[in-house]
Amino acid sequence: MQALWLEDKTLTLRDHVPVPSVPRGSALIQVLLAGICGTDLEQVKGYYPYRGVPGHEFVGKVVKAPGRPSWVGQRVVGEINIACGMCKACCTGLRTHCEKRTVLGIVNHDGAFAEYITLPLENLHRVPRSIPDEAAVFTEPLAAALQIGHQVQLRPTDRVLIVGAGRLGQLVAQVLALTGCELQIVARHETQRALLAGCNITPTTEDAVPCEKMDVVVEATGSPSGFSLALQAVRPRGKIVLKSTYSGGVEVNFSSIVVNEITLVGSRCGPFASALRLLAGGVVDPTPLIVSRYPLSKALTAFEHASQPGVLKVLLEPTSRLESLKTQ
Amino acid sequence: MQALWLEDKTLTLRDHVPVPSVPRGSALIQVLLAGICGTDLEQVKGYYPYRGVPGHEFVGKVVKAPGRPSWVGQRVVGEINIACGMCKACCTGLRTHCEKRTVLGIVNHDGAFAEYITLPLENLHRVPRSIPDEAAVFTEPLAAALQIGHQVQLRPTDRVLIVGAGRLGQLVAQVLALTGCELQIVARHETQRALLAGCNITPTTEDAVPCEKMDVVVEATGSPSGFSLALQAVRPRGKIVLKSTYSGGVEVNFSSIVVNEITLVGSRCGPFASALRLLAGGVVDPTPLIVSRYPLSKALTAFEHASQPGVLKVLLEPTSRLESLKTQ
Repeated sequence: MQALWLEDKTLTLRDHVPVPSVPRGSALIQVLLAGICGTDLEQVKGYYPYRGVPGHEFVGKVVKAPGRPSWVGQRVVGEINIACGMCKACCTGLRTHCEKRTVLGIVNHDGAFAEYITLPLENLHRVPRSIPDEAAVFTEPLAAALQIGHQVQLRPTDRVLIVGAGRLGQLVAQVLALTGCELQIVARHETQRALLAGCNITPTTEDAVPCEKMDVVVEATGSPSGFSLALQAVRPRGKIVLKSTYSGGVEVNFSSIVVNEITLVGSRCGPFASALRLLAGGVVDPTPLIVSRYPLSKALTAFEHASQPGVLKVLLEPTSRLESLKTQ
Repeated sequence: MQALWLEDKTLTLRDHVPVPSVPRGSALIQVLLAGICGTDLEQVKGYYPYRGVPGHEFVGKVVKAPGRPSWVGQRVVGEINIACGMCKACCTGLRTHCEKRTVLGIVNHDGAFAEYITLPLENLHRVPRSIPDEAAVFTEPLAAALQIGHQVQLRPTDRVLIVGAGRLGQLVAQVLALTGCELQIVARHETQRALLAGCNITPTTEDAVPCEKMDVVVEATGSPSGFSLALQAVRPRGKIVLKSTYSGGVEVNFSSIVVNEITLVGSRCGPFASALRLLAGGVVDPTPLIVSRYPLSKALTAFEHASQPGVLKVLLEPTSRLESLKTQ
């Protein structure tokens, strides 16, 4: 099959990657659409040493499920952490923190920038008919945005700031606006600002962010400067939610965290079922974030496009080659 | 009066500092004993630009209280944040985070390394007779240790690690041991280890700290290496409480905080009344931490002593000069 391959911080397109074998309890999934996210871009910079097929945001169709034929033909999204089910984290309900986990497209498990992937059936969620592929492909990052509310209580009376209006920041904004909180979001690029205005969320600028006034700040820029701004904006005893993973360290003034008794909360993967409910109800619409779709054969161009400043969601269509082969 | 003076990162002993004037609603307090803490030492290094008399841990006797004669003669300890009572923080019950606060010996309010200080009456707590001066002088740092339990739920089943067994770490250890949790504490120096053994707390070493196993880690070293160890020890979804203030920044790998969904909690001043209850009940005994007492006239020597590695609590006695004058 065709797949994108990451090795030594270099992406190449390969035409003859073997279709993955499907163990019992797992499914072979044909990828319909896959999304490029900030983590993929950081991975190329070396955020995490990974060799294999990247990609973890997808919607697909089950084409094989040994012993479980009812899954075949189902349109699905999939949780990205593949857990052992046996370790202490798994046994205490923290499967996303399984000590022996592999992670789709990130840790020892080939990812979604390919024609086919495998995942355990327990990771899969059927996609309701009302959700088109173009929305379903956002389930993973939307779940990640919802994880904020899972970890931090967001009160309708809170003043909340989101730093960064990129791929993730836009989804976080849509989700947090649903709490009724007083929401501000720092958006640098005109396209980002226009999208927010379309959701009745008023963007702001770095210079307009008040000092020590925000009850909760979400850092979603993927850059150290985003954290500085978050620390400046949060009130004493307030909370900063860290959503970005990126390579390298950040210089932090711990004294201000101690003196102002700030709480920092690292936040990663979230609840898929909740994300699908919001998509099915049309309460959140991520599709305006899509700026472009590329066939998998143009994945390198797609990555270049996605890495430009201010560019939102770029999608890959691994099936387009199959379609074009069929029509030949 | 005699007082220690900090200016341009330099300590000097001054003999003719004016006794502070006492506004209505405040008290003039004769300092009986004052303790040197890590923050005082960091202040000399420039952690916070301060010009004036340092010192914020004290026990004293009220000698003047305009309009409130019942306070005169009372033995007291005092909360160190002097709040305006009017700002948003004050009006929402966060007086320790008052936007216009001064802080005894730290921000714009002369501190306890002097014969006399003033504090608002609302900051004072009467010291029960059963608590000797040598224990009462620890009320402020003991309250700071108790603040951990105010911010983070400590379950009896939790595995808890304290990094650092210095002045503050020892008090934190005594307080956290009361929860029944499985407690370990990293202690570098033999004197620190001996003290812990005396409290039935088993010290450990840096090398013996397990990876990603601790539910809660308290960073009380006052050094960047302490944070690295804390981050290594905490389990996914665990909490790190930051108790140390020190000058300069720390290089932090944010990705591990995000991926492991760690919560960092900055923690500062705590509840004095609770600290006094524990001291009065003899449940916590800080007096074995005292390594030396110096008259205020020997404050520079005392600071040198306190800054040696592994040295625990050094006390200053501003009254000793008065006593010696009396006996002459």
